[in-house]
Amino acid sequence: MDKIPPLENLIQKFTKLPGVGKKTAARYAYAILAMTDEDSNSFIDAIREVKEKVHFCKVCGNYTDDDVCEICSSRDNSIVCVVSEPKEVTAMEKIKDYNGVYHVLHGLLNPMAGVGPEDLNIKALLDRISGVKEIIVATASTIEGDATALYLSRLLKPLGVKVTRIARGLPAGSELEYADELTLSRALTDRKEI
Amino acid sequence: MDKIPPLENLIQKFTKLPGVGKKTAARYAYAILAMTDEDSNSFIDAIREVKEKVHFCKVCGNYTDDDVCEICSSRDNSIVCVVSEPKEVTAMEKIKDYNGVYHVLHGLLNPMAGVGPEDLNIKALLDRISGVKEIIVATASTIEGDATALYLSRLLKPLGVKVTRIARGLPAGSELEYADELTLSRALTDRKEI
Repeated sequence: MDKIPPLENLIQKFTKLPGVGKKTAARYAYAILAMTDEDSNSFIDAIREVKEKVHFCKVCGNYTDDDVCEICSSRDNSIVCVVSEPKEVTAMEKIKDYNGVYHVLHGLLNPMAGVGPEDLNIKALLDRISGVKEIIVATASTIEGDATALYLSRLLKPLGVKVTRIARGLPAGSELEYADELTLSRALTDRKEI
Repeated sequence: MDKIPPLENLIQKFTKLPGVGKKTAARYAYAILAMTDEDSNSFIDAIREVKEKVHFCKVCGNYTDDDVCEICSSRDNSIVCVVSEPKEVTAMEKIKDYNGVYHVLHGLLNPMAGVGPEDLNIKALLDRISGVKEIIVATASTIEGDATALYLSRLLKPLGVKVTRIARGLPAGSELEYADELTLSRALTDRKEI
């Protein structure tokens, strides 16, 4: 059963998707086998089309099927929110009241793994800096996120741009007793008058 | 961002896989986008190849890339284990000491959902009955599994074939206090001398 080479091969391919182990991959492969040819062909077409038509916006580095993405071409270009990955744009967009644009770095500084500034989409950020009033650094609250934020701040401030970073503190709906020390310590440091 | 039609389309296609919701589908679609063209093409080829080369064994109904599957052509054909789906063959094969063959019904009797005997791969089972000494019904311990087992037993016994069903009882490693009543009741009924 498990020695049908095309099936084994497809299972192995599915394990390349994030969080998919051998067992889940086998479930997916069996589901493909059980699909009508029409369904499996439209699945193939969807993969092919996404790879052919979707690429990086030449301004912000986010995914788009256009030259310049919809956000870059329709929103306030004087506020730029810097994120590490395209999917983080989707996360930020959920809050709905942000009307600025984005800039996707495609990574975070990580000297230990050999990721330096030249490996990130930073040059394009400098290219679009004229007319920008504020750069909001929305990188993760991790060592790499902190390092990237610090680097960008040192790079951009001398150019006369206001650089801010999204606040770190207690997540909404969370109890103090379950928060870790670092979160609490930052929430305390960044306290504001009410 | 979420208005890139090819990306939306691929996400929607991924939700057709079992247990994949919108969020997981989006993760998979982003992973496809991040793949090299070589990787995404070999993914496409794997799907195409599995659909082209893998089909049902004409004897047992299990998947194979041959005319008759490896199990049917190399094992003891006088004992047939009847299962509902191809993936259950994989499950049974894990126990390793079964040397008989299989028969895949591709479903279970379910009158409420309109699934009758004519919708299952039962005719092919009757076609291969000569020379068979025992039919082991390994359907699930559910209403549909029970109904199918009963139906097969009534159909096959008059033909002079021994029909058995895999035992139901306490799963290995489980405690009595956590077992449900039906499991316990069956384990009690099917008790054997030691």
